[in-house]
Amino acid sequence: MAGRVVQRIERADADVVDGLGAAGVATVHEAQGRIGLLASRLRPIYPGARIAGSAVTIAAPPGDNWMLHVAIEQLQPGDILVLAPTSPCEDGYFGDLLATSAMARGCRGLVIDAGVRDVRDLTQMGFPVWSKAVFAQGTVKATLGDVNVPIVCAGAAIDPGDVIVADDDGVCVVRRADARRVLEAARKREANEGDKRERLAAGVLGLDIYDMRGKLEAMGLRYE
Amino acid sequence: MAGRVVQRIERADADVVDGLGAAGVATVHEAQGRIGLLASRLRPIYPGARIAGSAVTIAAPPGDNWMLHVAIEQLQPGDILVLAPTSPCEDGYFGDLLATSAMARGCRGLVIDAGVRDVRDLTQMGFPVWSKAVFAQGTVKATLGDVNVPIVCAGAAIDPGDVIVADDDGVCVVRRADARRVLEAARKREANEGDKRERLAAGVLGLDIYDMRGKLEAMGLRYE
Amino acid sequence: MAGRVVQRIERADADVVDGLGAAGVATVHEAQGRIGLLASRLRPIYPGARIAGSAVTIAAPPGDNWMLHVAIEQLQPGDILVLAPTSPCEDGYFGDLLATSAMARGCRGLVIDAGVRDVRDLTQMGFPVWSKAVFAQGTVKATLGDVNVPIVCAGAAIDPGDVIVADDDGVCVVRRADARRVLEAARKREANEGDKRERLAAGVLGLDIYDMRGKLEAMGLRYE
Amino acid sequence: MAGRVVQRIERADADVVDGLGAAGVATVHEAQGRIGLLASRLRPIYPGARIAGSAVTIAAPPGDNWMLHVAIEQLQPGDILVLAPTSPCEDGYFGDLLATSAMARGCRGLVIDAGVRDVRDLTQMGFPVWSKAVFAQGTVKATLGDVNVPIVCAGAAIDPGDVIVADDDGVCVVRRADARRVLEAARKREANEGDKRERLAAGVLGLDIYDMRGKLEAMGLRYE
Amino acid sequence: MAGRVVQRIERADADVVDGLGAAGVATVHEAQGRIGLLASRLRPIYPGARIAGSAVTIAAPPGDNWMLHVAIEQLQPGDILVLAPTSPCEDGYFGDLLATSAMARGCRGLVIDAGVRDVRDLTQMGFPVWSKAVFAQGTVKATLGDVNVPIVCAGAAIDPGDVIVADDDGVCVVRRADARRVLEAARKREANEGDKRERLAAGVLGLDIYDMRGKLEAMGLRYE
Amino acid sequence: MAGRVVQRIERADADVVDGLGAAGVATVHEAQGRIGLLASRLRPIYPGARIAGSAVTIAAPPGDNWMLHVAIEQLQPGDILVLAPTSPCEDGYFGDLLATSAMARGCRGLVIDAGVRDVRDLTQMGFPVWSKAVFAQGTVKATLGDVNVPIVCAGAAIDPGDVIVADDDGVCVVRRADARRVLEAARKREANEGDKRERLAAGVLGLDIYDMRGKLEAMGLRYE
Repeated sequence: MAGRVVQRIERADADVVDGLGAAGVATVHEAQGRIGLLASRLRPIYPGARIAGSAVTIAAPPGDNWMLHVAIEQLQPGDILVLAPTSPCEDGYFGDLLATSAMARGCRGLVIDAGVRDVRDLTQMGFPVWSKAVFAQGTVKATLGDVNVPIVCAGAAIDPGDVIVADDDGVCVVRRADARRVLEAARKREANEGDKRERLAAGVLGLDIYDMRGKLEAMGLRYE
Repeated sequence: MAGRVVQRIERADADVVDGLGAAGVATVHEAQGRIGLLASRLRPIYPGARIAGSAVTIAAPPGDNWMLHVAIEQLQPGDILVLAPTSPCEDGYFGDLLATSAMARGCRGLVIDAGVRDVRDLTQMGFPVWSKAVFAQGTVKATLGDVNVPIVCAGAAIDPGDVIVADDDGVCVVRRADARRVLEAARKREANEGDKRERLAAGVLGLDIYDMRGKLEAMGLRYE
Repeated sequence: MAGRVVQRIERADADVVDGLGAAGVATVHEAQGRIGLLASRLRPIYPGARIAGSAVTIAAPPGDNWMLHVAIEQLQPGDILVLAPTSPCEDGYFGDLLATSAMARGCRGLVIDAGVRDVRDLTQMGFPVWSKAVFAQGTVKATLGDVNVPIVCAGAAIDPGDVIVADDDGVCVVRRADARRVLEAARKREANEGDKRERLAAGVLGLDIYDMRGKLEAMGLRYE
Repeated sequence: MAGRVVQRIERADADVVDGLGAAGVATVHEAQGRIGLLASRLRPIYPGARIAGSAVTIAAPPGDNWMLHVAIEQLQPGDILVLAPTSPCEDGYFGDLLATSAMARGCRGLVIDAGVRDVRDLTQMGFPVWSKAVFAQGTVKATLGDVNVPIVCAGAAIDPGDVIVADDDGVCVVRRADARRVLEAARKREANEGDKRERLAAGVLGLDIYDMRGKLEAMGLRYE
Repeated sequence: MAGRVVQRIERADADVVDGLGAAGVATVHEAQGRIGLLASRLRPIYPGARIAGSAVTIAAPPGDNWMLHVAIEQLQPGDILVLAPTSPCEDGYFGDLLATSAMARGCRGLVIDAGVRDVRDLTQMGFPVWSKAVFAQGTVKATLGDVNVPIVCAGAAIDPGDVIVADDDGVCVVRRADARRVLEAARKREANEGDKRERLAAGVLGLDIYDMRGKLEAMGLRYE
Repeated sequence: MAGRVVQRIERADADVVDGLGAAGVATVHEAQGRIGLLASRLRPIYPGARIAGSAVTIAAPPGDNWMLHVAIEQLQPGDILVLAPTSPCEDGYFGDLLATSAMARGCRGLVIDAGVRDVRDLTQMGFPVWSKAVFAQGTVKATLGDVNVPIVCAGAAIDPGDVIVADDDGVCVVRRADARRVLEAARKREANEGDKRERLAAGVLGLDIYDMRGKLEAMGLRYE
């Protein structure tokens, strides 16, 4: 039954979290083997934000944002709120007042598979949100949910303390235990990409850089 | 049968309309008891616009924008065009020429549960539109609809002369007869929010400001 | 069976292509008789881009972007990549490395009925993309598709070498053989619109400019 | 604010209601001038049901079916429950227990712009439901809504006591005050259709029955 | 501009058409190299129908079914009506009267990327329809479209006279010129499948029948 | 990286699995505290099936059904195949040949957040499938996925060996470790429901059975 608040969660090291944020969603997603993406229906409320942080998770009843108040007390600087409704909902669970409170505790942003409102204010405050909808529909405070329990948000399984990376490409989760390894893989990938980018910019084709012509021919590609 | 144009409609007082616009969608929606929102599929074509005005309503056949020309003649300064297709449609009923005409009559914007086009021009003209789609698909002028009759637009019942409030959070309708009362409630709400915002910014929790701890405990919330 | 790359395609004259681009999607679509629009689900990754170019077409398996590498070799300056997955898919087929390569060959943009990623980088590079989704999901290189064959992309039939026009209103295709005629029609339309715009801005109604009152009355429009 | 239960509502005469049910949705919709249809997302849980009845309306919070219990007390034989959530929701508000209770009071069916469950039992009981979703997701009983107030359900404005007609084609509402007039128009339409059907079955073309050839030619139709 | 009716179209031989119908959608689609499927949003109005026929194509304006009357005159026994609206629409273009007329001319069914109504009657008549929606919404007869021109219907390019195959799996188009070749490939495929089916039913694994184990191992599959 | 096949998984006891199947989705979902439902987009290909079994899980690339062949070897009598594509896809991964093979190994059905085909054959074979789409689109065998790893399918986290319950209401997962406890709760619930059903059928209101009137009044419900 709902109504659990787990107060002590493990978080990844700050340097790892920040490194993953610098790498960005597409690189992190590739670096960990093309897993962990949240569904593309989550979009940022304004362009240009890129954040990473530790997940404080919320399972909330449809149209009820009570647990957000409970979750905010659990925030530590560098955390990201991650809310999954217990059934599909696009109500506006979160607005400028809750953002003010979350920012006061060092929260870096919100990922929500539901709606958000006051987006003009949130934009001015620089509080980034990735949501399924922008919708002013208000919520009630009548039914319990859970805080810091494992959730599935927008199709991805997320445990409290997992690392969330979010930017214009969407949102990716990295398991806390994998975070340092993924960061290393991401950095290798970036180093490798720099060289490729230069050669591609100079007009060398991917067909040649990646040595694809033979395999394509063997597969039966026909030039006409 | 379609084909009615109601020429005389009642409008709310200008100060009330403008007051509601200043309050914005989320506040107005809350102030009137969480009713009146149009569906979240209506999105602004550019960020940052916030308007309020009196609804000149249009029921238009799918793919036929004839009634927009008829409706524009009914506009008075401060009005907002509100179009509901008689069956779901995303055609581009409205573009820069119609916007030019509407602006010449003092129209403040368009709310349309269908498509719009010429959005680059509309953006440059500063004519805000909330629509279901951006779609260049042209329309015909062959079948009658109605102007200034009660409509359902994006899930909300709207009468001609009702107050429309629209901003980045979406669109809300306020019944003309309720407008002044709702404005007062909105202002009280705003006054009240200012104080809360300060306390939240100072780090006081919503759990304490709203005195939620006892009720949560009574409901069975368990901290682990 | 898949695996064809057509190397020689006909393109429209550069002045025609550029003229169509200057006219923009809504005008071109009207000028050619309200045909050729791609579905409204294709949206630009950033506002303000307006391009035209010759289509290099790609039919790609779901989740497999190998053919993009093959297609880039076929690009000539002024071309636009147009990708249709062989079944619905929103994976991120294209990112900043492929964009770097495409730009090095003079490519003007990408139209894709699937996903794109690295949109922050693409925005900074000024490489415009119209896509169904922004999604970091990676792809593989394991299965053949086709390059420069007729495709259906977002509901529109497109042949290689057809002219693609894309802007904030969406994407339109003009058959290569029709391109010059459509350009002429678009220019006439624009000339005609300038005059109308002035009269509308001066407050003359469309009802009068287009002489609609008699026909509306004959159809049974009733003013009340 | 929510929490109203209107106990006394006017209903149309039983013979009118039943006559409209016999005519069916498509005919009734045409007979009243092509208005009143609910959105096509409402689908029957099993084929073949055709009902008409007086609307007992419910505005219910998302994920909260408390008001259904309240509404069932307001049912009279021949009524139909019509539920609109106050924001989009697909939870299963209704199952076999509530159906048992509703049937005990003479209820003819449920129209719900949300979810339903126990559909196997409901099918066996012969209790028809038109819903947006089949979804076992449970609901709570924590927040008030309204019973027998005007609602917008699946895009149609419905007042308590309006006549609801539902069959395999969907759901249509007829304003109570219009019900007898619409029934007469529906019967005329049906009489007229019988003759047309015979002629069409005999191979006479609609082009000739409706005398369309001249108008088509005048509009510019070209046979090639 | 719209308004063309092509009266003389080529059709595939009747035995080829019927052979393709007997093979069914999934087999035909595979036999022609996994192309030609219409989008999965087209669903049959009742289960169990399986038809094939020659396409009589219709491009119709949104909410206007005039061209269906024109198209019915062009039907020959064994034909299938295929309607694509010129912009997305779910109105009920077709009901029992039009079906009566079409059946009188030997039409085998309707494929429509829009809505249909009177589905209970159509089911009783045994007139199969594959549609995007069931929706009683009526249409007008005010604007021209085209009959027997190339169309794109539910994402597939279809020429008049192409073979349409439709069953519970959806709808597939076979180019007229390819029809006999595809039929032969389908028959080979079916013969081949019979043997496989027996072995699979006997418990032999696909891994062994298709000799996949070596390739899987080479790709790196790891059993744990 | 993908390519894992876990061969030894724990399953719940057969009597528990079968007991949960007899209880059905809605009851099981309630009995375990309203958790575990898969999204409502998964629908049965024919009505009336009700199954339960142990999950053999598959994570498959979009448009690639190779892992289904691998998974079938892992089936034991009473198992259910559960497939989640690694990115959204509606291709027809599964048809009558794979069903033949799965049935030969005692498989009770398939749950797939993608497409299925040959549904007429599957219906005749009595092999139930819950899928997101019916779509004949074929797949390839070119890229590895995983078998018997934790997956997220249609929004629910599923481990291999978890109990899957599926019927006309949709699909629910019960964690293997919770299965016996949930079965007991389901049985209690059913016993309890029988009594309620009788009283409701006799006309006693839920308002009285559940003693709601006082609480409703306290919440402010107003009868008018």
